[in-house]
Amino acid sequence: MSGLFVTFEGPDGSGKTTQIQKLADYCRAKGYAVVQTREPGGTLISEKIRALILDVNTPEMDDVTEALLYAAARAQHVSQVIRPALKRGDIVLCDRFVDSSIAYQGHARGLGAGVAEINAFAVQGLEPDLTFFLELDPEAGLKRIRKNSNFDRLEQETLAFHRRVNEGYELLRRQYADRYKVVDAAVSEDVLALEIRRIFEVWLAARHSV
Amino acid sequence: MSGLFVTFEGPDGSGKTTQIQKLADYCRAKGYAVVQTREPGGTLISEKIRALILDVNTPEMDDVTEALLYAAARAQHVSQVIRPALKRGDIVLCDRFVDSSIAYQGHARGLGAGVAEINAFAVQGLEPDLTFFLELDPEAGLKRIRKNSNFDRLEQETLAFHRRVNEGYELLRRQYADRYKVVDAAVSEDVLALEIRRIFEVWLAARHSV
Repeated sequence: MSGLFVTFEGPDGSGKTTQIQKLADYCRAKGYAVVQTREPGGTLISEKIRALILDVNTPEMDDVTEALLYAAARAQHVSQVIRPALKRGDIVLCDRFVDSSIAYQGHARGLGAGVAEINAFAVQGLEPDLTFFLELDPEAGLKRIRKNSNFDRLEQETLAFHRRVNEGYELLRRQYADRYKVVDAAVSEDVLALEIRRIFEVWLAARHSV
Repeated sequence: MSGLFVTFEGPDGSGKTTQIQKLADYCRAKGYAVVQTREPGGTLISEKIRALILDVNTPEMDDVTEALLYAAARAQHVSQVIRPALKRGDIVLCDRFVDSSIAYQGHARGLGAGVAEINAFAVQGLEPDLTFFLELDPEAGLKRIRKNSNFDRLEQETLAFHRRVNEGYELLRRQYADRYKVVDAAVSEDVLALEIRRIFEVWLAARHSV
């Protein structure tokens, strides 16, 4: 595969969606073909799975079930959207990927190493080339979100949960130090966008010089 | 857990549903509390997942996605139905379990050992105490099914696929020889029911004498 697979990770409210849009615009202006995506990735099957996960009427859903459903939606997203784009040579910018499941389900919900295993099966060997981590204090992230009115089931979780998510990410940042680029998401959108752009350019140049 | 977990495996058309009903009737007549179940196991969440898997309008579903969805439905079935029943001390008779996924998705569809891994996560350590394998030539099984008119997506698969399923089961029968009891499903329903009852009684007596 000749494309580039770039993922964005970090707490809710850290501005991932905005930053993906800005980096996509920048890359397109430079002539790259860009696919912006997020799970469930716009596939019919994954959308149906996601609706099931977020359904506030099924509070009896087991954590193990939920983790497997996320992995299933991801498998479809990878096979139907991400792999074809990478095969075409596109830049794929993805809002959350396997690391989110490891941080949220594996670490914060305490499901452990099995979450990494089921996701390794789901993605069948696909790994991001580069991961931007938008660092933001969990409390600040929650405050940003709470401006919106409709909370889904995950957003209703407590701050304590989001602190555990953050711990999970800290482990991932150490484990995958090579591909993780940590940026401060507490600054303004435009400052953050410039920082991401700068890191991306340096990384791309280093990659091309190999 | 003090209950007994008994699974029924074998090709479609081998008569599992009928035999489960007959063994359940027998056990109830002897005074046991019995739970008859099959995946998705009557839980709302698992039913929704199953509907998604069998939807003939989503032929684009990736094999990896399908295997994860089966595992997700199973996880909910285990946590909401099977474990509570076993904790109460009931006999649970289950139509297909992890072995079906290993035979169908792992072996016949060629997804490999990952299928066993995702299912190990789904069931979180639960294993059958006893498994009845209803042995039937794949061709004979298909002929029995084809009497019915409405084929779902899985039933539309070819005979070659069902032969690979059978090979997968042969490996499982060797791997789990201790819990596998193989019975000839080509005989009449009543003869088969008597054989299953006999094996069950012998097994139960041996278990109680330990």
